Amino acid sequence: MNTIGVDWGSSNRRAYWLDAQGCLLAQRQDAAGVLATPPGGQRDFAAELQSLIGDWRAQAPAQVWLSGMVGSRSGWQEAPYLPLPCHLHGLGEAATPLAADPQIRLLPGLCQRPPLGPHDVMRGEETQLLGAWRLRPQNGWVLLPGTHSKWAQVENGRVLTMHSAMTGELFALLRRHSCLSAVAGGDEPPAPIPAHESAFDEGLQWAREGGGLAQLFRLRAQALLTDEPQPPAEVAARLSGLLIGLELQARQIHSASLVAAPGLAHWYTRAAARQGLTLHALDPDQCLVAALQALQTPTETSP
Amino acid sequence: MNTIGVDWGSSNRRAYWLDAQGCLLAQRQDAAGVLATPPGGQRDFAAELQSLIGDWRAQAPAQVWLSGMVGSRSGWQEAPYLPLPCHLHGLGEAATPLAADPQIRLLPGLCQRPPLGPHDVMRGEETQLLGAWRLRPQNGWVLLPGTHSKWAQVENGRVLTMHSAMTGELFALLRRHSCLSAVAGGDEPPAPIPAHESAFDEGLQWAREGGGLAQLFRLRAQALLTDEPQPPAEVAARLSGLLIGLELQARQIHSASLVAAPGLAHWYTRAAARQGLTLHALDPDQCLVAALQALQTPTETSP
Repeated sequence: MNTIGVDWGSSNRRAYWLDAQGCLLAQRQDAAGVLATPPGGQRDFAAELQSLIGDWRAQAPAQVWLSGMVGSRSGWQEAPYLPLPCHLHGLGEAATPLAADPQIRLLPGLCQRPPLGPHDVMRGEETQLLGAWRLRPQNGWVLLPGTHSKWAQVENGRVLTMHSAMTGELFALLRRHSCLSAVAGGDEPPAPIPAHESAFDEGLQWAREGGGLAQLFRLRAQALLTDEPQPPAEVAARLSGLLIGLELQARQIHSASLVAAPGLAHWYTRAAARQGLTLHALDPDQCLVAALQALQTPTETSP
Repeated sequence: MNTIGVDWGSSNRRAYWLDAQGCLLAQRQDAAGVLATPPGGQRDFAAELQSLIGDWRAQAPAQVWLSGMVGSRSGWQEAPYLPLPCHLHGLGEAATPLAADPQIRLLPGLCQRPPLGPHDVMRGEETQLLGAWRLRPQNGWVLLPGTHSKWAQVENGRVLTMHSAMTGELFALLRRHSCLSAVAGGDEPPAPIPAHESAFDEGLQWAREGGGLAQLFRLRAQALLTDEPQPPAEVAARLSGLLIGLELQARQIHSASLVAAPGLAHWYTRAAARQGLTLHALDPDQCLVAALQALQTPTETSP
């Protein structure tokens, strides 16, 4: 049977269509994320899914996997979190069939509870993690940066621990709503990170100097006190370097897989290189496809 | 001659009236800060000052000192920053007479430029620092917490270095505008810090565990995963403990003077005690009065 996967997040959704042999037939994406307000105001997830993948399903029967915020409390139907430690190949079995259409299944998010580690959750990234493990089955850490960066420690296909860092959200918040807005281009869209490599590197350097959050105000003071004008995009790049530098610094590791689109991958790889951290970049689309292939042909779950 | 001091900040202004012997005759305060929008929309600083202290000036001639954001680029008239290192007793001499009324003088802010240290500025706190030095002439650090916490290293009345931390602003931003809003009572006013001591202590503990900003998301995950309901005020107190803990942790010192109103002084003293940092609390009003007394009878400036 064919397989369709939809990564339905807060802001966007990405759909992938695979044949019975796991070959990618087509993929598409749009901005109808769970937090996007639909034209009418009222949410009809069934109709929205139909408009996204209805034509694919009409052509041949397909098993449909949904991942991401669509399975959260504020989504279509809640799919409970799978507690760590857990095996990535157990995701399919733990999926929740949709009440209205059991051919559609909601993949679980992952959660961490004490004493294993601090409370933490992810939803959507676990599916990319499954694919990342198939593409690069290397014991160690996987980093999935974004609004909320996720770090997962994977060993023999099992997720042992996770950490989340609000790096992307902090960047947007500070650029838009803080005392830095006036100097960092608060009216600009928060993504992508402005292409000012030397300013970004300066931010990384500030992170290394220590003091953590105490370095934030420096962005404003520097812009106030420097005679030459500081383009807001440059200040924003410096802010980004500082925040990404602080995120990487908090994890004392030497190597990790990185699941990120090329733009973000560029900045994280640049930051990591300066901290002695080697990142092995994987493409998020390829991870999703690999995950769907794994869900199609379930591997034996290790104990 | 009598002396009047007005600490005219972003949100509030506080006025103090001293006789020629330096005795406090009266004090008052209101919320007509530099960033407050006046009823008509148009700003008339002269009229606003008149309505605040006109009656005091009518009774006897007085020298008037203005400090705080009123002397910034977005205030009444810009008073240039005094660069560090500088002597606190040089503040009066460096004041800028108001063009419209030279009897009124604007006290300078302080700034720090490389190579002395990272770019930094303060405006308003320098006057409290002068008073703090008069009340407790102890070489070492002075902490003035708030929206932007200021740390100043003072030796023999000279300010050597400073650091700013955006602790109060981050608390308000994260509580109101971030993914934590839903669990931390985003609609509540950001101050004062909710009185949940054990939750505050838990936040301090998280700061000690390391990871810095990576601990922020934990607030959300804990609220999502814990069965018993988490009152938003409790989550906010935890957030406050985490941020204040991170601020104190970034400064590796053992003792400091603290200039803070009783509410904030309570939380900072609590946090400091758990990090082996002893804080000696000074009252901000008393610091302002002491500063005005110093301005009234200038001490010899040390080289």
